[in-house]
Parts: sequence; C-alpha cells; structure tokens
Amino acid sequence: MLDDPTTPEQRLENLGLDLPPVPDAVGDYEPWVKVGNIIYTSGQLPWIDGDLKFVGKMGAELTTDDGYQAFRLSALNAIAQLKSAVGELSKIKRIIRVEGSANSAPDFTEQPQALNGASHLINDVFGQKGRHTRMIYSDPAMCLDCATLVVLWAEVEA
Amino acid sequence: MLDDPTTPEQRLENLGLDLPPVPDAVGDYEPWVKVGNIIYTSGQLPWIDGDLKFVGKMGAELTTDDGYQAFRLSALNAIAQLKSAVGELSKIKRIIRVEGSANSAPDFTEQPQALNGASHLINDVFGQKGRHTRMIYSDPAMCLDCATLVVLWAEVEA
Amino acid sequence: MLDDPTTPEQRLENLGLDLPPVPDAVGDYEPWVKVGNIIYTSGQLPWIDGDLKFVGKMGAELTTDDGYQAFRLSALNAIAQLKSAVGELSKIKRIIRVEGSANSAPDFTEQPQALNGASHLINDVFGQKGRHTRMIYSDPAMCLDCATLVVLWAEVEA
Repeated sequence: MLDDPTTPEQRLENLGLDLPPVPDAVGDYEPWVKVGNIIYTSGQLPWIDGDLKFVGKMGAELTTDDGYQAFRLSALNAIAQLKSAVGELSKIKRIIRVEGSANSAPDFTEQPQALNGASHLINDVFGQKGRHTRMIYSDPAMCLDCATLVVLWAEVEA
Repeated sequence: MLDDPTTPEQRLENLGLDLPPVPDAVGDYEPWVKVGNIIYTSGQLPWIDGDLKFVGKMGAELTTDDGYQAFRLSALNAIAQLKSAVGELSKIKRIIRVEGSANSAPDFTEQPQALNGASHLINDVFGQKGRHTRMIYSDPAMCLDCATLVVLWAEVEA
Repeated sequence: MLDDPTTPEQRLENLGLDLPPVPDAVGDYEPWVKVGNIIYTSGQLPWIDGDLKFVGKMGAELTTDDGYQAFRLSALNAIAQLKSAVGELSKIKRIIRVEGSANSAPDFTEQPQALNGASHLINDVFGQKGRHTRMIYSDPAMCLDCATLVVLWAEVEA
C-alpha cells in the first residue's frame, strides 16, 4: 500500500464519491488550522451543499446504519477541509486521530459500529497513511440536531 | 490587525474585563501544560473568585444567551490560565483550538450560538491570532452542574 | 521525584497492579499513534482479559466510587498501550493530557471525583512526569455500555 501510486483523489473517485463543497463554519471560527506539520479541522457536520442530510439521534430516529452513513458523510466533509488546506491529499503523511460525536438516545450502545463509517472511509481513501486513533463522544443533543460531528488531525509532509 | 500594537491585555481592558484569579483544578491535575511551543489548558469552568456563576442545563434552567455568557466566562478563565503560563499574552502566536462542553437538555440544539460566547471573546482579545478551530461537546450532566467547560490550545512564540 | 530511580513498572508492582493484556480496538482503528515525540492513545475501556468490568451509568447503576475504579482501570489499559508503544515506561517524559468520558445519569455531577481514579494512578505511576491536564466528557450512553473511556497523550524522550 505504501508504494501504491493511486492518489487519495483517485480512491475517492473509485468509491464513486465526490468531495462536497467546503462547508462554512456554523459559528465564528475557522474550519481548519495548521500548526507546524499538523492540520486540525473543526467539527464537521453531515452536509451536502448546505443540506444537513442526517438529523436526529441514533437509537431513536436513526438506526446504527444511519449513523454509519452520517459519520461517513461527516468524514467526507472533513476530507474536503483537508484538501482545501493542502491542495493535493497525497501531501498527507498520516491521519493521526478521528474524533466523532454521536447524537445518541440514552440506551444506544453501538457507537463504535457507527463511527466505523468514518474510519472505513479514512482507511479506504488514505490506505496505511489513514491508520488513525479515535475517540468517540456520545451527546444527548447536538448542534442543529445533526447526527454526527467529525474532527480530523492530519500530519502533512514537512 | 497583525500590525495592531494593542496588546491582548489592553483589549481585555477595552472590553471592560478583568482576568479572574486563576482557579485551582477541581481534581488531581494541572491547569495547563506546555509541550514544545504549545500550551494546553485543562477544562475551565465559569468561575469568578471561587463562585460558579452559571449552573444548570441549556434548554432547561438556562437560555442560549445564558450559555453564551457562561462560555464567555469559561473562556476568560482559560485566558487567565494562558497568562499564568506565558506572562504576557502577546507571546501567544495563535489560538489553535477551542473545546467547549455545553450542559444540555435533550432537545437543545443551539450549542453553536452559545459557544460563540467563547469564540467572540477569543477573537476580540487575540485578533487574527485568535482565529481558531473548535469542537463542541454536549453533555447530559456536568461536574458540579456547571453550564460550560472550555479548553484552549495556544501556540506560543518559539 | 525527578531523581527517583524507581521505574514506572516498579511503581505499578508496588501498587500491586499488573498491566492488562493490550486490548484490541473495538472498531477499524489503531490503539495508539506516534507523531513526532508524542503518542496518542485511542479511547480505552475498563477491560481485563476481554471482560468489560464496569458497565452502566454513574448516578444510576454505578456509584461515584465505581466510576473511580472504572477510570482507574481504563487508565491502566491506556498505560498498557503506552508500554506497548515505547517498551519501557521510563522513556515517557511527560503525560500531557488525560481525556475521560463518564457514562452519566442526567443528574450526576461528581465526574471530577470519579476521574481522579485515572489521575491518581497516572500521578502514582509517573510521579512528576505524570502531572497532566485533563478534560472530562459526560456521555448519556456509551459504546458497549462501558462506564468509562480514557485517552492519554504522552511525550516521549527524543
């Protein structure tokens, strides 16, 4: 995989995925910041073209599979932010961490399977460079009632 | 703004704000740690002089505007921690990230507007150097029933 | 303490603690990643030998002291991950941050006392090098209904 010349952009195309337009922040902050060789994104919602595709709580209005798809879409938005930051995704050396917040009903316990929607996409798009740590947060209520938030930390080539 | 000689301390004064006394940790940990050129604070509550000013959940006991004021006060405490770490706030090169936890009733969805209380203050005090990423957490219950927690990550001059 | 030649491994032994076998991730991610001189773990559950020892919410099925013990065990798993990353724990220069998620009933407010279960262990095992910042998250529901998740950030010798 390390010698695989396929770019992350080609892998996205092979998956049939377009990067969504880079969404604006939902408050007075930046969508990403670069410090040294690391880019941190802000929390990314499951948007396409300004339309919030997944609303509600897993374990109530949403199934675990809905949550999987929502995390996948939040991660796609986060990848779009990374591309906005670096130009070519092949400049990314490593995805360090995936942070995922799941809008959860009080008895929902399948957050790991849902967050795999983000992890699988990251791994598919970045290969070995995508192998990341992660932290799950479960929230009782979320901004705009979105289903998911994803933050990515990425190391770029010096 | 980058050439603006006004110091963060002067901007605080212009806003009519005093930095609160640096609060102790509420457990067996440090209020901040510096690693390389980055300072990380611990979670800061909305204290003034040991008095927890905002208690309860947004969407229940507290309005969104209460949450805004609570996040502003938590951020002021976090700025006080940064000053304790660096002496002069003009040594801060960049605020990298604002982490905010909102004590939320299950149907509360205005976390972004509330967290702007922290973001606006950071932007007002640090100008362009204050432009930050952020991550919101919504919690069903919080330590001491505080309304908000804020963590800041700040890059300092080498 | 800085000149204390006792190793973290010896301190664990003095505490009567064995590091548990390094648990697998509960999704498609890595248990830790090293970037520069910093190791970040993923969220660690309160496992021993694949058995989840603490299940349920603080303030409901679990007391604050149960939460303390659960955080202590999650932290022990996180230390096991650090050892897996570095070989000898004496290579760790500083514990930067402890992130702790508490499975919380809506009226539970003693998260700091519970998270001290992680902080006390870190401080006991690493001494001055263990002095850390921390951030608490309170979740209304957690993966596998686990009581606690702990992430550690550790700086290692260059």
